[in-house]
Amino acid sequence: MLYLIGLGLGDATDITVKGLRAVKSCSRVYLEAYTSILTVGKEALEEYYGKQLILADRDLVEQGADEILKDADVTDVAFLVVGDPFGATTHSDLVLRAVNAGIPYRVIHNASIMNAVGCCGLQLYNFGETVSVVFWTETWKPESFYDKICKNRAAGLHTLCLLDIKMKEQSIENMMRGKKIYEPPRFMTVSQAAEQLIQIIERRRSEEEEELGVTEDTVCVGLARLGADDQAVRAATLRQLASCDLGGPLHSLVVTARLHPLEVDMLRLNAAPDALQHLRMIDSSTYTS
Amino acid sequence: MLYLIGLGLGDATDITVKGLRAVKSCSRVYLEAYTSILTVGKEALEEYYGKQLILADRDLVEQGADEILKDADVTDVAFLVVGDPFGATTHSDLVLRAVNAGIPYRVIHNASIMNAVGCCGLQLYNFGETVSVVFWTETWKPESFYDKICKNRAAGLHTLCLLDIKMKEQSIENMMRGKKIYEPPRFMTVSQAAEQLIQIIERRRSEEEEELGVTEDTVCVGLARLGADDQAVRAATLRQLASCDLGGPLHSLVVTARLHPLEVDMLRLNAAPDALQHLRMIDSSTYTS
Repeated sequence: MLYLIGLGLGDATDITVKGLRAVKSCSRVYLEAYTSILTVGKEALEEYYGKQLILADRDLVEQGADEILKDADVTDVAFLVVGDPFGATTHSDLVLRAVNAGIPYRVIHNASIMNAVGCCGLQLYNFGETVSVVFWTETWKPESFYDKICKNRAAGLHTLCLLDIKMKEQSIENMMRGKKIYEPPRFMTVSQAAEQLIQIIERRRSEEEEELGVTEDTVCVGLARLGADDQAVRAATLRQLASCDLGGPLHSLVVTARLHPLEVDMLRLNAAPDALQHLRMIDSSTYTS
Repeated sequence: MLYLIGLGLGDATDITVKGLRAVKSCSRVYLEAYTSILTVGKEALEEYYGKQLILADRDLVEQGADEILKDADVTDVAFLVVGDPFGATTHSDLVLRAVNAGIPYRVIHNASIMNAVGCCGLQLYNFGETVSVVFWTETWKPESFYDKICKNRAAGLHTLCLLDIKMKEQSIENMMRGKKIYEPPRFMTVSQAAEQLIQIIERRRSEEEEELGVTEDTVCVGLARLGADDQAVRAATLRQLASCDLGGPLHSLVVTARLHPLEVDMLRLNAAPDALQHLRMIDSSTYTS
């Protein structure tokens, strides 16, 4: 049996009882380590499970699936994923390979950012399409996520922005020389994402005449380490978030749309003191009852 | 402290280790019992936790919040919610009351249908706005969810349809007489939801000239008891789902939009044999790479 087990968000104890039992029963346990991270590392999980974990980076999952699935028809193998196994990133490919090899699989679900984002008080059924924000390079500055946010906003829907993670990144120099030397992992912060959005807004403002769908004064929510003891939730304008420090990874950003009064009240619990004015503004103008 | 604890989907062991510890430490434990259900009942949970649970129906949560929060500043109280506490239904009101009363609160997340739906192989970031489908009555047959589905579909986005639950429903006769006698709980099935959708399609076809956004041949996915041992996932056309029986509650329905090849491969794992033709049709015509 192949178990795909969600670890949830936060720390080692966010696994479900069902998931923990499955981990303990498996002969090999892989930890997917390239789409998300917990606030604790591999060692803390190993100690908690009383088991060795095998780190599964992108190469292993995409090219070494046979190794992961080896003997899984006669023994139990676990594949651990931070959040939910079918959360922001699906592991459909691994499942399809298992099925093709005649290996049964079972999914043990858990929280992911896709639903835990509701804790900021915005209602999940008021969210539109989720977008990803990638680190820009000198030569590659995609803006399509901005258009999707505007489209959601025009339809009265909030947007969850998943922020880029760079694991095992090679410098161009090392890549050219074929050296498998990796840069330290990078995790996009709320402030970096807000800064990129503001750059897009400024560029478009200078080029376009029509009113922009999202501006520096749009109320957004910065989220960090959701589910952990030290999680941070900050409701503020985009401009304010560009200069905020929410601490260590992972971060996510929500761009709000039309707000329900109850959503405003919830955002106020986590509003930066200097953002209250903007939330008050919302009270009297943009939200609908 | 007020703990809002997600129970996940499935059975008693789908609670997280962190959530179980909190339940065991609380002096009072409420079970929210009107927006969702597990495949096991209150008694099974009580036995598993070794604790008495207090059933919290809508009246208690909406009008008896003071009772739930009583002494929560000096003792720990747990409020258990199937799925995630901020899943499809938020419990913002309870949180706001706690904060106003100076009671700290903590959320322990878990899987909800909003993210677990990914197990059918459709990618979560290809979903648009979630809709609710309510039981029609003789005089009230809302259709707005159909328009939202079509809007999502036109944007290339799948739609998760949450299906109605009627708990503690009073007959009009008993309501008029002021008798607190309740009808047995009702849970909308995939087949009932598909049937209502088809009625809308037929009505609109007779009245409108333009092409309909969703028809009887649209590929949909019926989901039942997600996360439980006997969960059912069925990919089929809307017409086929109207006559399928996926067993006991809870059910949900997904209306697909443009499909990625990997999504088609995953749907095929759960396709009704007679639906394969429609999925093949998709292969050659509607999906984009």
